[in-house]
Amino acid sequence: MKYAIAVLKGDGIGPEIVAEAQKCLDEVAKRFGHEFAYREALVGGAAIDACGTPLPQETIDTCLACDSVILGAVGGPKWDGLPAEMRPEKGLLGIRKELGLFVNLRPAKLHAPLADACPLKPERIADGLDLVVCRELTGDVYFGAKHRDEDGTGHDDMNYSIAEVERIAHRAFRMARQRQGHVTSVDKANVLETSRVWRETVQRVALEYPDVAVDYLYVDNAAMQLVLNPGQFDVILTGNLFGDILSDEASCITGSIGMLPSASLGETNLGMYEPIHGSAPDIAGKNKANPIATVLSTAMMLRYSFGLAAEADALERAVERVLEKGCRTGDIAKADERVLGCSDMGDAIAAEI
Amino acid sequence: MKYAIAVLKGDGIGPEIVAEAQKCLDEVAKRFGHEFAYREALVGGAAIDACGTPLPQETIDTCLACDSVILGAVGGPKWDGLPAEMRPEKGLLGIRKELGLFVNLRPAKLHAPLADACPLKPERIADGLDLVVCRELTGDVYFGAKHRDEDGTGHDDMNYSIAEVERIAHRAFRMARQRQGHVTSVDKANVLETSRVWRETVQRVALEYPDVAVDYLYVDNAAMQLVLNPGQFDVILTGNLFGDILSDEASCITGSIGMLPSASLGETNLGMYEPIHGSAPDIAGKNKANPIATVLSTAMMLRYSFGLAAEADALERAVERVLEKGCRTGDIAKADERVLGCSDMGDAIAAEI
Ligand SMILES: CC(C)[C@H](C(=O)O)[C@@H](O)C(=O)O
Ligand SMILES: CC(C)[C@H](C(=O)O)[C@@H](O)C(=O)O
Repeated sequence: MKYAIAVLKGDGIGPEIVAEAQKCLDEVAKRFGHEFAYREALVGGAAIDACGTPLPQETIDTCLACDSVILGAVGGPKWDGLPAEMRPEKGLLGIRKELGLFVNLRPAKLHAPLADACPLKPERIADGLDLVVCRELTGDVYFGAKHRDEDGTGHDDMNYSIAEVERIAHRAFRMARQRQGHVTSVDKANVLETSRVWRETVQRVALEYPDVAVDYLYVDNAAMQLVLNPGQFDVILTGNLFGDILSDEASCITGSIGMLPSASLGETNLGMYEPIHGSAPDIAGKNKANPIATVLSTAMMLRYSFGLAAEADALERAVERVLEKGCRTGDIAKADERVLGCSDMGDAIAAEI
Repeated sequence: MKYAIAVLKGDGIGPEIVAEAQKCLDEVAKRFGHEFAYREALVGGAAIDACGTPLPQETIDTCLACDSVILGAVGGPKWDGLPAEMRPEKGLLGIRKELGLFVNLRPAKLHAPLADACPLKPERIADGLDLVVCRELTGDVYFGAKHRDEDGTGHDDMNYSIAEVERIAHRAFRMARQRQGHVTSVDKANVLETSRVWRETVQRVALEYPDVAVDYLYVDNAAMQLVLNPGQFDVILTGNLFGDILSDEASCITGSIGMLPSASLGETNLGMYEPIHGSAPDIAGKNKANPIATVLSTAMMLRYSFGLAAEADALERAVERVLEKGCRTGDIAKADERVLGCSDMGDAIAAEI
């Protein structure tokens, strides 16, 4: 089969890590007889520099014309001083909205060979750690109306409609069915009207999934439980703002944020796949970055956008094998371990496919 | 000196833990020649049961007529089904607002004898852990206008005025001067207008404290840094919603939430002091609760509302000594340790003053 993939390298280490992911994808294409056609487009700081805007219309058009999107990372100190409307983040938020990507999936799991890197004591993860945060991505206070009063007071409208909560809730329950059958919905329903709509709607949707266990946590408690006993979670279903916070917390509990992929999905098969780590400007261009999160993101792409489960498995197994063999980039290496560069890590994974 | 203290025992374990705190306060009074006059009032579920509202006007009046307020804990499954306006939490939010308590201080530190309980690996806390979250408590999306549209969409207005940010920022910077001289302001200024007002205002206030180091983190990053390297923090300055999440996360990183006090302060000396843990309905009335967080909260009361630093030190040292002697309630005991009941723990602390 032939697939068109929009490639948005972005800023910082973005270009290097995306190049390694493409290297691995090309190997998958060769082994399984597919064809991946890449179409590059600009986003974030790179787009600001070239076109004066973090999300050119051409980039949106390119993405919409493709079967999926790979994104590296956006942002860096160079663009930090710009006004809000012109910053790299705005490109990221814009693309999520323009492509209708309302589900953000962030799996956080321990890779056995890297279990040492977990910041928690071993007894805290005795039950393992294999959860996915299912974060709503195109609503909430992120996209509500914003303004300043004359006296300088800042306002953001936090809101969720019933339809917005329903569609993400269905995704979470269906995903739980493929996993351990457990959804934890996180909100602040003891304080927020938005959260009360969220909770009532999730409760109603839950009735359609009697085979899935569901519980409800307040966000402050969820932030604690992630540290105290992360093994209790399977699918964490939450809104855009709480999902931002909890998915970052969950990811650092694995101890290797350089390993963690993400998928952003909508109603169609078109999805956007990106590592959850940032653009790491300090090591950009030095061949030091860890490409694994990006490679695993493209495995999610093969699975969710293209329906190529065997190919996704092959790519994920290749990553597991290089880890078992002791291949490490700087971020995941222990003091006495030999460190591979970004491109060597890409080669090693490609060789295992 | 004579001080009037409003005592709001609340629900669940509230009455037991407050009783032990009073026992210790009475011992302080005896040793140092003070007089503490207690005036009880109802809040939370207890007030709902007795008066049909979680915060009777009489309770507000009692608090305003006293020099400080001790609160046990509010809430429990009995009242969970009530409509939002009638729930115990509403009493807590109401009292914060009515008393103008816009600063919430939550110190999180490791007690050396309990360091084992920390869920993080020892190397993660090599720099120690002694931070205080300085959370704004009467603004933000907590108190913004709430409504539902006709189609059922829920809305909450997130907002901060410049004056609200200024007054809490000054508190944080002044507090940092008494500590390690470092403020970390946490917001989501890359997305929220409210946060941009927050950050600009903190930056302006910071100019008045050139001796205090200040940095700015996005809330998602702060949630990570608390797990990865909590020793980097001294004073965390943040809004009501982010403060709710981060202070709970910070507290569980100490491994003993039953130990952690809090103070809520306003423009006057009147403050409210409460443990950060909840009402623990499962162990209520069984003499199993840990009164230490409440005792340490009253130490904060002695210091902040009454200006009695020596008395506060004496109470805090008494707690350290009982811990060193191996006194433990169930929540902080290891498998082989002898467990004290709530009242025995109160006796032990009182005996050390
Ligand atoms: C860069 C920022 C706007 C973004 C977000 O908050 O969504 C990022 O933190 C993320 O989680 O992808
Ligand atoms: C009970 C709840 C309304 C409250 C809050 O969110 O402020 C609690 O979590 C706290 O932090 O004191």
